[in-house]
Amino acid sequence: MEWQNKLTQLLGVTYPVIQAPMLGVTSPAMVAAISNAGGLGSLPVGGFSPEKTRQLIQEVKSLTDKPYSVNLFAHDVPDIDSVQAEAMRSYLNTLIDKNGLHAEVPDLESLKFYTYKEQIAILTEENVPIVSFTFGIPDDGSLTKMKQHGIILIGTATCTEEAILLAEKNVDAIVLQGIEAGGHRGSFIPGDVPQVGLMALVPMARKAVNIPLIASGSINSGETVKAAFALGALAVQIGTAFISANESLAIPAYKQALATAKDTDTILTRAFSGRWARGIKNDFIDKVESTGLDIPPYPIQNSLTGTLRAEAQKKDNGQLTNLWSGQAAALSADKLPSADIFNKIISETESL
Amino acid sequence: MEWQNKLTQLLGVTYPVIQAPMLGVTSPAMVAAISNAGGLGSLPVGGFSPEKTRQLIQEVKSLTDKPYSVNLFAHDVPDIDSVQAEAMRSYLNTLIDKNGLHAEVPDLESLKFYTYKEQIAILTEENVPIVSFTFGIPDDGSLTKMKQHGIILIGTATCTEEAILLAEKNVDAIVLQGIEAGGHRGSFIPGDVPQVGLMALVPMARKAVNIPLIASGSINSGETVKAAFALGALAVQIGTAFISANESLAIPAYKQALATAKDTDTILTRAFSGRWARGIKNDFIDKVESTGLDIPPYPIQNSLTGTLRAEAQKKDNGQLTNLWSGQAAALSADKLPSADIFNKIISETESL
Repeated sequence: MEWQNKLTQLLGVTYPVIQAPMLGVTSPAMVAAISNAGGLGSLPVGGFSPEKTRQLIQEVKSLTDKPYSVNLFAHDVPDIDSVQAEAMRSYLNTLIDKNGLHAEVPDLESLKFYTYKEQIAILTEENVPIVSFTFGIPDDGSLTKMKQHGIILIGTATCTEEAILLAEKNVDAIVLQGIEAGGHRGSFIPGDVPQVGLMALVPMARKAVNIPLIASGSINSGETVKAAFALGALAVQIGTAFISANESLAIPAYKQALATAKDTDTILTRAFSGRWARGIKNDFIDKVESTGLDIPPYPIQNSLTGTLRAEAQKKDNGQLTNLWSGQAAALSADKLPSADIFNKIISETESL
Repeated sequence: MEWQNKLTQLLGVTYPVIQAPMLGVTSPAMVAAISNAGGLGSLPVGGFSPEKTRQLIQEVKSLTDKPYSVNLFAHDVPDIDSVQAEAMRSYLNTLIDKNGLHAEVPDLESLKFYTYKEQIAILTEENVPIVSFTFGIPDDGSLTKMKQHGIILIGTATCTEEAILLAEKNVDAIVLQGIEAGGHRGSFIPGDVPQVGLMALVPMARKAVNIPLIASGSINSGETVKAAFALGALAVQIGTAFISANESLAIPAYKQALATAKDTDTILTRAFSGRWARGIKNDFIDKVESTGLDIPPYPIQNSLTGTLRAEAQKKDNGQLTNLWSGQAAALSADKLPSADIFNKIISETESL
């Protein structure tokens, strides 16, 4: 098994295996554990304040001197439709009451949205080596600033058209997120959210763009790593398999749900955040979707549901918070140190 | 490249590569061409009369002495909701008129539905060696009759739960149809249609059942065959790549649509047949789905739209007939003899 290729060389890693940035799951300790093991740890900072962004990056840097990446949400913030948002806010407050949670949905006036634009300066100041992004493409000024600082850029595409748009911006690599993947869809073209499986997406994108491709979506074993490489990916990105890791921020109920999830137990939903994301079906999704209420767009819905989800997590209630998961969660739900999970996948791949 | 395995031995083929049964596309000549090339040709007969079924099987037998399979639709026929069906019938007649087609939607009273139950006797009489089925599982009596006659049975699953149900009936192999696949979903568990990508489906099913697995969905090249085998499939089933073949019944407009289809150009729709199927978006889907009318279940809707589709096909009108397609159609739309397409995929795989 020859692990080294032009992408590992560009990223400066031993193995072309990336730990997916998972907001609410990935800790700086997880990022450092994967980077120290020879992969690429990815720190999610989407929507965080500049201060929190800097603090987390510094924490990663204190734990590893290996390359790591920081993941941005490259979206714009839409105007709030206050009628739509107030209706959702009112419903969520009712849901909180009914479930005896001690929380309150924030007032619309108090909502504060940070974007990647406020984070770029910190990335350069902290000499972050690699930046990945999803939900869109940062503006040209931000891209130029990062490139001028020598930052390696990794975009996210869920269909070939998005891969072509990323290629036009000269990114260094592209994560191809198959429909199998858990968490938020990185989609950014207008219209219906793309739902392309990896078996189609990698070959289709490979024909269209000449940029190193990273396959993502239900990759969690030697077999799946081999399959992704057979399709022409130069690296894989692994998410769900690290949710049960010791360094994960996931609550016990979340880890339990992953361990027993069937391949039909996840769905795409906008209920939690206003953006399409794949998670295990639960009461929250059922309830919000059956209200018939318009779901405000990301990041508005995300902020409206934040206090409820935080309170549910405190109570280890997996029915009222997001349980992002890929379609093959049960195949890799080991409660082990992140590095052990990583090393297991590497050894399995080498043994095939 | 070692092609032989326990499944090729069971099926009696040189290569573990199956041409997918595609109703309206696959001709007896295509089936024979693939079987003669060392693969397994599959003859679709779902919904055909006993007479037509026998005639097609005899045609295949006149063209090859190699193993082939016959594919059944293993569904029951629901009662007709005449209010629902008449509303659709009326709409379809309007659509026919608006488009200047010379057709009429059949009266509900004239609809005649054949099922697999009327085909079993023919399969045994004609000594069909292999029978595959989709949309469900034949009743125990039919399964027993076929097994007693030495027929090898291949079921179709779109999720692990369906694979387990098939395993309980002791089928000899299972086609795992990934969400990437074109045409009708083989799904038969109650509830939402499963939408599992192959990267998740093959490993999940493999863990659950100990039966040879056949991967299907956007497989059309050496890379994708290799990837399917890496996931643990013992064979692949290839459909869309044969739609443009010389022996295909597809109209020119259909072949043209495949050649230029993007990976986001197909959707799952019930508009044509009443069952979920993946096809290239076109006017018919848009129009039927935007009526807000209830779509009658399969095979009722299939029969109601039949004359309209036949007439559209006569006029090479790709906007008013079904253009079933997987998500990676454009990667394999060669207008060549079926055997050339088959041999190209075999050589590509061997060269990797």
